[in-house]
Amino acid sequence: MRKYGVVDTTFSRVNMGDIAERTIKKEDNDCEIKRYTVPGIKDLPVAAKKLIDWGSDGVITLGWVGRTQLDKYSYLSTSIGLIMVQILTSKHVIDVTVHEDEAEHPDDLVRIAEDRATKHAINLVRLVRDGESSLRGYAGKGLRQGYRNAGELS
Amino acid sequence: MRKYGVVDTTFSRVNMGDIAERTIKKEDNDCEIKRYTVPGIKDLPVAAKKLIDWGSDGVITLGWVGRTQLDKYSYLSTSIGLIMVQILTSKHVIDVTVHEDEAEHPDDLVRIAEDRATKHAINLVRLVRDGESSLRGYAGKGLRQGYRNAGELS
Amino acid sequence: MRKYGVVDTTFSRVNMGDIAERTIKKEDNDCEIKRYTVPGIKDLPVAAKKLIDWGSDGVITLGWVGRTQLDKYSYLSTSIGLIMVQILTSKHVIDVTVHEDEAEHPDDLVRIAEDRATKHAINLVRLVRDGESSLRGYAGKGLRQGYRNAGELS
Amino acid sequence: MRKYGVVDTTFSRVNMGDIAERTIKKEDNDCEIKRYTVPGIKDLPVAAKKLIDWGSDGVITLGWVGRTQLDKYSYLSTSIGLIMVQILTSKHVIDVTVHEDEAEHPDDLVRIAEDRATKHAINLVRLVRDGESSLRGYAGKGLRQGYRNAGELS
Amino acid sequence: MRKYGVVDTTFSRVNMGDIAERTIKKEDNDCEIKRYTVPGIKDLPVAAKKLIDWGSDGVITLGWVGRTQLDKYSYLSTSIGLIMVQILTSKHVIDVTVHEDEAEHPDDLVRIAEDRATKHAINLVRLVRDGESSLRGYAGKGLRQGYRNAGELS
Repeated sequence: MRKYGVVDTTFSRVNMGDIAERTIKKEDNDCEIKRYTVPGIKDLPVAAKKLIDWGSDGVITLGWVGRTQLDKYSYLSTSIGLIMVQILTSKHVIDVTVHEDEAEHPDDLVRIAEDRATKHAINLVRLVRDGESSLRGYAGKGLRQGYRNAGELS
Repeated sequence: MRKYGVVDTTFSRVNMGDIAERTIKKEDNDCEIKRYTVPGIKDLPVAAKKLIDWGSDGVITLGWVGRTQLDKYSYLSTSIGLIMVQILTSKHVIDVTVHEDEAEHPDDLVRIAEDRATKHAINLVRLVRDGESSLRGYAGKGLRQGYRNAGELS
Repeated sequence: MRKYGVVDTTFSRVNMGDIAERTIKKEDNDCEIKRYTVPGIKDLPVAAKKLIDWGSDGVITLGWVGRTQLDKYSYLSTSIGLIMVQILTSKHVIDVTVHEDEAEHPDDLVRIAEDRATKHAINLVRLVRDGESSLRGYAGKGLRQGYRNAGELS
Repeated sequence: MRKYGVVDTTFSRVNMGDIAERTIKKEDNDCEIKRYTVPGIKDLPVAAKKLIDWGSDGVITLGWVGRTQLDKYSYLSTSIGLIMVQILTSKHVIDVTVHEDEAEHPDDLVRIAEDRATKHAINLVRLVRDGESSLRGYAGKGLRQGYRNAGELS
Repeated sequence: MRKYGVVDTTFSRVNMGDIAERTIKKEDNDCEIKRYTVPGIKDLPVAAKKLIDWGSDGVITLGWVGRTQLDKYSYLSTSIGLIMVQILTSKHVIDVTVHEDEAEHPDDLVRIAEDRATKHAINLVRLVRDGESSLRGYAGKGLRQGYRNAGELS
């Protein structure tokens, strides 16, 4: 049985934590999921770290980022933190972020969030359950999450 | 009994440390609070680290950031530092910052500071006392601190 | 026998992992290669770390970076992470990245990716197999990967 | 007896190390000061680390930063480094920096440097000798170093 | 006998490694120098770390940085890495970088590289052999490497 961690935020405007939970359960029927909800993106790294301390084999974090330059600096520091958690634990923490300035219309943001959370939850299951070769068939294929695939350049 | 740490600065133009202390006491009547006042934001990470060394179960830091690009780089390095403290200790350090360019009128800055410090002090109590599920009901709800909630996208 | 790690992504639009594998095999006929495919660049550091945990003497990572400022921040956090992996393990992780805005025409991007992945795979073999003096003859020669060499200034 | 470390640079255009040494001696008459002079700001973190290795209870670093964007990136990496030293040692490293573009006239730069180095040397003594409550009376008072105090917002 | 490490790159357009080696030998006649040549600046931190693992008392790294914003982000991540190496080992790693946009004419770039590499190699010898007070006489004197000294402000 595999243990997955899901971390989401109250700042987010879409419940991506629920999407990730549902997707993981559907993809891996021998698993346990632990969910951790924090205020904002800068709280994601410690929650991921704690979930790994408590036994998670891999974690998905789901963050929502505002439009200002300051929000982008918060994104940068969060990204560095999430990478450090992974380096120190040798566990994957798949980092899903939706940026409020990715689209003007709320429907588009919802669609991006759902697509990105779903695809990356599947990526997490593959990496945790099936290991380092699980995504080999897609290497260099220009896959995108939240958008249409860009495709391979011939 | 829970132990909370509160770190604030002499650079700040609002006494957010007092606000945080009052709020924590009101929210959690079986707690001890340790306060640490430092000059500016770049001194926050070590103070948070020391409070955790001394037994705090979680910390709130309250920083005030100036208007220049340099202040923003200081914000960035501080954010990275606060995230590293959390990763190394597996304890929450909730990071409240008010940026002097968030509003033109002093009254608005005061209001932002009070709202943000209060709401995040409550977040800290919930996470420390009630754990990883304490904010689950607000996941994806678009909560904001310092501003009106943005709300969930339908 | 030397052990090399190769990490590539599904985000990439060129299969640089295959290029690196082929090049390493051609350069070093007494070696074992372990490949790890991850979704995007921010997943590279933990994969490199795990390959080193599993015995790799050196790793090459092959990332593809988008055009937006956000992609550049992801590049920055990934670079910091890859450098931290190296510092903590004292092993080389040669970091190949192709940026989608390096060229307008897809053919040029493909050519850059092939040239850069090939040359850096050779660099990795030299450093891992032949050590700290293996590139001495090229010191200060203005070598470039992905572009024509800039050359030494007289 | 307390042990203070003072780190300054040959890049600086004002001898802030002397100012800091004089101020610390005046503020704390039962102390030992160790001085470390390095070339530029990026050398400050290791010097602070070494002084703490050698027994300093707290350190003040005094850096001078040029006008270009590159200088600002050096400031950023130095700031991250100084914060990491503090986190790893649980000791204060008060970071004084003067930026050459803070003022046009040399007299103003000298005045800023003197004021900032003096006030932060006093801050260091208070934190090291008198502890976490020593600056409590100034919390939220809008103190500034190098400039007139901004004051508390009512 | 002191042990110095010299790290340079094949990306550089001036052989600064040779300049540093010659200068160190001339300054310190009881020393051993170990040279490490890597492809580019992002490979400098691990090489410095390995040289220290192998016994170097101090290291000089000699990097060449391109003109684009991306090159500057690579500079930033490298700088953070070099500072981390120093913090983790408590050894000096003097970081010489020449930026291709510092001058338009190649002759000027060569002159800057020679001056900077020479002066910082001397700085390294002083710090490693003569310790924390060796540069005290130059504190606050506005020394520059690569350019004329800026001088002390009166």
